Amino acid sequence: MVPPADQLACIRSIDAATDERFGPPLPVDGTVELENACAAAAAAFDAYRQTSSEARAGFLDRICFEIMELGERLVDLAARETGLPRTRIESERGRTVGQLQLFAELLRSGTWTRTLIDPALPDRRPLPRPDVRLRMIPLGPVAVFGASNFPLAFSTAGGDTASALAAGCPVVVKGHPGHPGTHTLVAGAVQTARDATGMPKGAFGQVMGPGIALGTALVADPRIAAVAYTGSRRGGLALGHVARQRSVPIPLYAEMSSINPVILLPEALRVHGPALAASFVASLTLGGGQFCTKPGLVLAVQSAALEGFITATAAALSCCEAATMLSRDILDAYRRGVHAFAAHPKVQRLAEERSEKGYPEGQAALFRCAAADFISDPVLAEEVFGPAALLVCAEDTRQLRCALEGLEGQLTSTLHMAGADLAEAADLLPLLERKAGRIIANGWPTGVEVTHAMMHGGPYPASSDSRATSVGSLAIERFLRPVSYQNMPAALLPSSLRDAQS
Amino acid sequence: MVPPADQLACIRSIDAATDERFGPPLPVDGTVELENACAAAAAAFDAYRQTSSEARAGFLDRICFEIMELGERLVDLAARETGLPRTRIESERGRTVGQLQLFAELLRSGTWTRTLIDPALPDRRPLPRPDVRLRMIPLGPVAVFGASNFPLAFSTAGGDTASALAAGCPVVVKGHPGHPGTHTLVAGAVQTARDATGMPKGAFGQVMGPGIALGTALVADPRIAAVAYTGSRRGGLALGHVARQRSVPIPLYAEMSSINPVILLPEALRVHGPALAASFVASLTLGGGQFCTKPGLVLAVQSAALEGFITATAAALSCCEAATMLSRDILDAYRRGVHAFAAHPKVQRLAEERSEKGYPEGQAALFRCAAADFISDPVLAEEVFGPAALLVCAEDTRQLRCALEGLEGQLTSTLHMAGADLAEAADLLPLLERKAGRIIANGWPTGVEVTHAMMHGGPYPASSDSRATSVGSLAIERFLRPVSYQNMPAALLPSSLRDAQS
Repeated sequence: MVPPADQLACIRSIDAATDERFGPPLPVDGTVELENACAAAAAAFDAYRQTSSEARAGFLDRICFEIMELGERLVDLAARETGLPRTRIESERGRTVGQLQLFAELLRSGTWTRTLIDPALPDRRPLPRPDVRLRMIPLGPVAVFGASNFPLAFSTAGGDTASALAAGCPVVVKGHPGHPGTHTLVAGAVQTARDATGMPKGAFGQVMGPGIALGTALVADPRIAAVAYTGSRRGGLALGHVARQRSVPIPLYAEMSSINPVILLPEALRVHGPALAASFVASLTLGGGQFCTKPGLVLAVQSAALEGFITATAAALSCCEAATMLSRDILDAYRRGVHAFAAHPKVQRLAEERSEKGYPEGQAALFRCAAADFISDPVLAEEVFGPAALLVCAEDTRQLRCALEGLEGQLTSTLHMAGADLAEAADLLPLLERKAGRIIANGWPTGVEVTHAMMHGGPYPASSDSRATSVGSLAIERFLRPVSYQNMPAALLPSSLRDAQS
Repeated sequence: MVPPADQLACIRSIDAATDERFGPPLPVDGTVELENACAAAAAAFDAYRQTSSEARAGFLDRICFEIMELGERLVDLAARETGLPRTRIESERGRTVGQLQLFAELLRSGTWTRTLIDPALPDRRPLPRPDVRLRMIPLGPVAVFGASNFPLAFSTAGGDTASALAAGCPVVVKGHPGHPGTHTLVAGAVQTARDATGMPKGAFGQVMGPGIALGTALVADPRIAAVAYTGSRRGGLALGHVARQRSVPIPLYAEMSSINPVILLPEALRVHGPALAASFVASLTLGGGQFCTKPGLVLAVQSAALEGFITATAAALSCCEAATMLSRDILDAYRRGVHAFAAHPKVQRLAEERSEKGYPEGQAALFRCAAADFISDPVLAEEVFGPAALLVCAEDTRQLRCALEGLEGQLTSTLHMAGADLAEAADLLPLLERKAGRIIANGWPTGVEVTHAMMHGGPYPASSDSRATSVGSLAIERFLRPVSYQNMPAALLPSSLRDAQS
């Protein structure tokens, strides 16, 4: 049960660098606010989904404008609440606006409706064929749960909200308690845009509160038709359980966990070893290692070149400054994960362990183990959220394949290869396709482009639904379903299905 | 647990008209056969999915040929096992072949891979954009559960098998115990086609056995990646539970139940009343009412024209011959459903109850109730599988809308309208879109065209997944997921993603 709001303390922003509260107290929502938000979304559904694609594109454009209008205030607040550098927040804001623009562009292109028309065949024998036309329509109100590690791009007005609003689904965002101030500012910008473009009030609503009761009640609300979630596996599985136990089960798209295996093939190691060590460390420590696509697992067949790579990587990591982590909870979980690896009897710590500084620093950590041990202990394939990675050394290609076959589903998998590696890469590719949603050649998995061809998702448990992406234009399809119209008079057909348009 | 096969009796065909066993004893499969089928499917997956679209189209074409080669033997056997007329079986065979051909055509068109290419932008600032390309790949081995009421088109080589094989997924069919002889013949035809076209053995396998243990074990097998099911709600929900409880949950596409509301608008009743009565009776009794799209619910606002329609319908129904039902179990369930309606205090039986003949006859039944009573008792909206329908008389349009709003998700909804009804039809359309997957104007829901624009599915519980159709070319998408390739050397790219093809 969600307690009434007045029984709860207000929520406050927390400075990630100092763990101190700051800023104004922000209202916490209870049963009444949740009921209001869901009722408004349901009431707005038919009106909102029948707005034109151009009108919704204008709404998304206006959200971009209102977010940019928040200016330095938004950048300062998001940086302070998350501990992420201002430059990173600025580029994430650019990405957020880019996502909204991508969906505005998609709406204007008209391709998202996937119109299909099979004209009548009145002379067909033995029976005439009716006229059948198909389009996609939105599912209904969508609940969005943002991620702690992307306070803008995977949060209040992030890709999930942008794609759901584009589809014609009203959105109810559950504000992330890790950045309540940022959430409140951005939610206000979306509401301003909504009102300025004449969209129904219920097209966008938000609730905020700590703990799991409010989010659970949101997913259980019978008016919610789908859920988008980015976060921990535990959280995603718990909300998925709620979504399935409803009297009408609904789809929950949860992007949950991934260790993003990277395979270093022999020739690449020989030719590019030192450069690979430098680029690996840069990717591993980017944003404090707090990316869902952080390279958490590196696999290679043992060789002198691999030993050189390991030595260079360990040396580079030892020089890295510790990073301010997103929150005290995330730092604590990271330290627990690192300690568990360090204490594992089959695992060797490579980067020199520096005397641990106090809060909020997360020191990068690199571990090594033999492929045989990795294969026999699934604990070694669990995600540690933060700047930690495990190097797995295989005796031969067969053992490397065996280690890969044992992996759970992943967001990404990466192949580093040069000249003579091509044949082995080709041999590994079908296996990697079965394991991951995105396959990268000669790069690192961090950095997810917002483009039409991007797949950000993957086989379970990287995502709860391997058919869905949360980045790129295909993300809109999570919130659409087909409807066929048979022998429908032209006057009743949606405009996209009328003959003039076909 | 699935018992070993040798502990089970063999399965026999049952003549639907006499309830007598006939034909040779057919083998029943146990744990060993299930293990073999799943292992073969998994082993074949990479090889089968990498066959060319043209090769798989050739496989589907060959299945058509082999099915037709079975000739009269197949028609005789299916008619005897199901009690359906030979002409119906012949037309269903045509539809089955048409489905296989639709997917062969889709494969040859190349559109199913949904290729997207975002070329690199090496000069982009601050960071260059990588080359990102996306295609769809198959999920993995698919388990198919056919329906009792379509021994060919929704069974062993029906739409689910055709779309999964087209997608590149190996298929393991669980043979339907209601038509084991038909299943065995068709499975043999598919295996002949598989071998003749050089497809791997594991691309198509089958198991058969009575009861639920074998099907449950098939869905639980870790090598199965998706399930397609057409049948009862109870069966679909039970298998869905198994699919979700696995350590790696998988999608289950279950087409379950629907009462297919038909709305008769006032002008249509006035102008076309007698013709509507005749066409309604024809649709209701077609195939013994044993269609998932049977019109089980008719709604209208009370009027003299409605009374005329009801009288004409009841008279026509009383003249209908009783139908041979698919099986003793289905007949018994139908009679229980009819008796429950007849005993309901708020329901009136319209078609005269004839003295019930013995097995296997299912007598058509028509009931009537007031919309207020329909709205207040959800039992009245439950499906009765067979030739029964309920007429709901509303006091006014508002009450009609209220009755519609209370309905569960449906496969279809139908509007009969004439001249002055257009405005009210337009008003109802958004509501019907929210409730159903296909909306029919001035027709009846039976008869599902196999075309690109067909949607056969709908909001829960018509289907377990409102985004999926089991008929039409979009059915292939149930078994596909996107994979992105980033900066992949041309030599490693799948041929559909190479530049020459873009």
